[in-house]
Amino acid sequence: MWPPIALAMLTLSLIGIGCGDPAQLTRAAVDAINAADLILIPRKGTAKSDLADLRRTICAGVLTNKTTRIAEFDLPVRDATEADYRKGVDDWHDAVAAIWSQTIAGHLEDEGKVALLIWGDPSLYDSSLRIARRLDPLPTIEVVPGITSIQALCAAHALPLNDIGEPFLVTTGRRLREGGWPQGVDTVVVMLDGGTAFQSLDPAGLHIWWGAYLGMPDQILMSGALAELGARIAAVREEARERHGWIMDSYIIKRRR
Amino acid sequence: MWPPIALAMLTLSLIGIGCGDPAQLTRAAVDAINAADLILIPRKGTAKSDLADLRRTICAGVLTNKTTRIAEFDLPVRDATEADYRKGVDDWHDAVAAIWSQTIAGHLEDEGKVALLIWGDPSLYDSSLRIARRLDPLPTIEVVPGITSIQALCAAHALPLNDIGEPFLVTTGRRLREGGWPQGVDTVVVMLDGGTAFQSLDPAGLHIWWGAYLGMPDQILMSGALAELGARIAAVREEARERHGWIMDSYIIKRRR
Ligand SMILES: C[S@@+](CC[C@H](N)C(=O)[O-])C[C@H]1O[C@@H](n2cnc3c(N)ncnc32)[C@H](O)[C@@H]1O
Ligand SMILES: C[S@@+](CC[C@H](N)C(=O)[O-])C[C@H]1O[C@@H](n2cnc3c(N)ncnc32)[C@H](O)[C@@H]1O
Repeated sequence: MWPPIALAMLTLSLIGIGCGDPAQLTRAAVDAINAADLILIPRKGTAKSDLADLRRTICAGVLTNKTTRIAEFDLPVRDATEADYRKGVDDWHDAVAAIWSQTIAGHLEDEGKVALLIWGDPSLYDSSLRIARRLDPLPTIEVVPGITSIQALCAAHALPLNDIGEPFLVTTGRRLREGGWPQGVDTVVVMLDGGTAFQSLDPAGLHIWWGAYLGMPDQILMSGALAELGARIAAVREEARERHGWIMDSYIIKRRR
Repeated sequence: MWPPIALAMLTLSLIGIGCGDPAQLTRAAVDAINAADLILIPRKGTAKSDLADLRRTICAGVLTNKTTRIAEFDLPVRDATEADYRKGVDDWHDAVAAIWSQTIAGHLEDEGKVALLIWGDPSLYDSSLRIARRLDPLPTIEVVPGITSIQALCAAHALPLNDIGEPFLVTTGRRLREGGWPQGVDTVVVMLDGGTAFQSLDPAGLHIWWGAYLGMPDQILMSGALAELGARIAAVREEARERHGWIMDSYIIKRRR
């Protein structure tokens, strides 16, 4: 399914840094940051510059290795006009892989250790692992787990994610909107919701735990019966999105039978 | 659904410590350990004493606060002869809450900060949050997220958990065995499998990423087509379980269509 990872002179560390609070960094992440010869930091658009800043803050706070270099690069923008979504993503992955290669080549000979600081955990709704596999020659890939937004959400609400011995589904806003309440589960975690997909559900018997800017100074938490809270969350969300220019939010919905 | 958390003189910190590798500790976890007046450490049976040891190792490694006390207590055993599973769990939660209260009362007046070091993340298949809510008076509850076994598994295999924009289900061995392949998903994470529930599935088109003792010196990883690997994983698992006297393993299965 995934090609075996070839031994290579280049190691690429994908380091999970948690999702907003620098205290979420693990000791393994701090060690991996300091083991790097080169750290690549993406420059995104201005709207989300708070997020690129977290990476710089983290480097400034934990980097003690004087020989580690930091290189910023402009993150390509995905072509939203491409009608074929899969092809749009594919092309974007290629473009990012190309700029990684180029930036690495500008700083290292063909060996060394390159690190990327990944929002949350590199395995959860993140494309870096897929992009890394497009590099040629293929580097040795190393993953350092980081605290995800799901965990930050549960911790902030002191909420057990699963019911005892029961399963849960993690899905996206689009999926929830298109497919309704998923079969076979009473707990659903929703990420990547550009809007308020929870408003598309019949709220009877549903309870929501919502969080935005988790782990950040402006963290917002709301929880309660979806019937009572749905519209209020939507209003708070819209107001916050306008004020910041961007929003990152996630939520958990549980059904009581 | 959950009662509001009352303000109390006692704070109980449930601190996720990762699932075997002390380097998975976050800086927030280290801070919370050092902020505690009292750390409760469960003594389990002898078989899993390696696991209680991790808690002691972690305390020895990161605790710099000289005033923090450590209290060990004997973890009650769940009555496996109780025919009603829910009642068995309920009674066990009550018994654990009682011994927590008793141990805390033996060391603190009615205020202070008590910490429990929780395997992985406190929100994932762990009962501490439910037990904490049975304490009377109810303490202020604080949760510090920790790296889960799911994340350690993905990181070790350098595996993206979800497919692009697709959902995934997290479930238990018993659920998989009883219910077969769940509807609506192509990625399933299985935890709490006392056996090899993956062998109950028709392996055609299924790929497995399996890991035992993740993050520990004896970590074992295997991945490949379930049809080819199922029996081999079962044999390796059994051999390891006999050698250690216990096993903790998790796996991810993906379906290709
Ligand atoms: C591209 S995914 C990245 C997920 C990340 N790898 C993780 O482990 O959480 C982005 C989504 O994660 C969630 N998210 C990330 N950071 C968040 C935060 N600080 N607060 C709330 N949600 C967040 C939101 O649902 C957002 O749409
Ligand atoms: C009671 S649950 C606790 C889960 C924990 N709270 C977490 O966040 O991973 C125990 C299950 O977690 C998984 N697990 C925990 N630690 C593990 C490890 N080091 N290696 C493999 N699986 C592990 C196994 O599936 C085990 O049956």
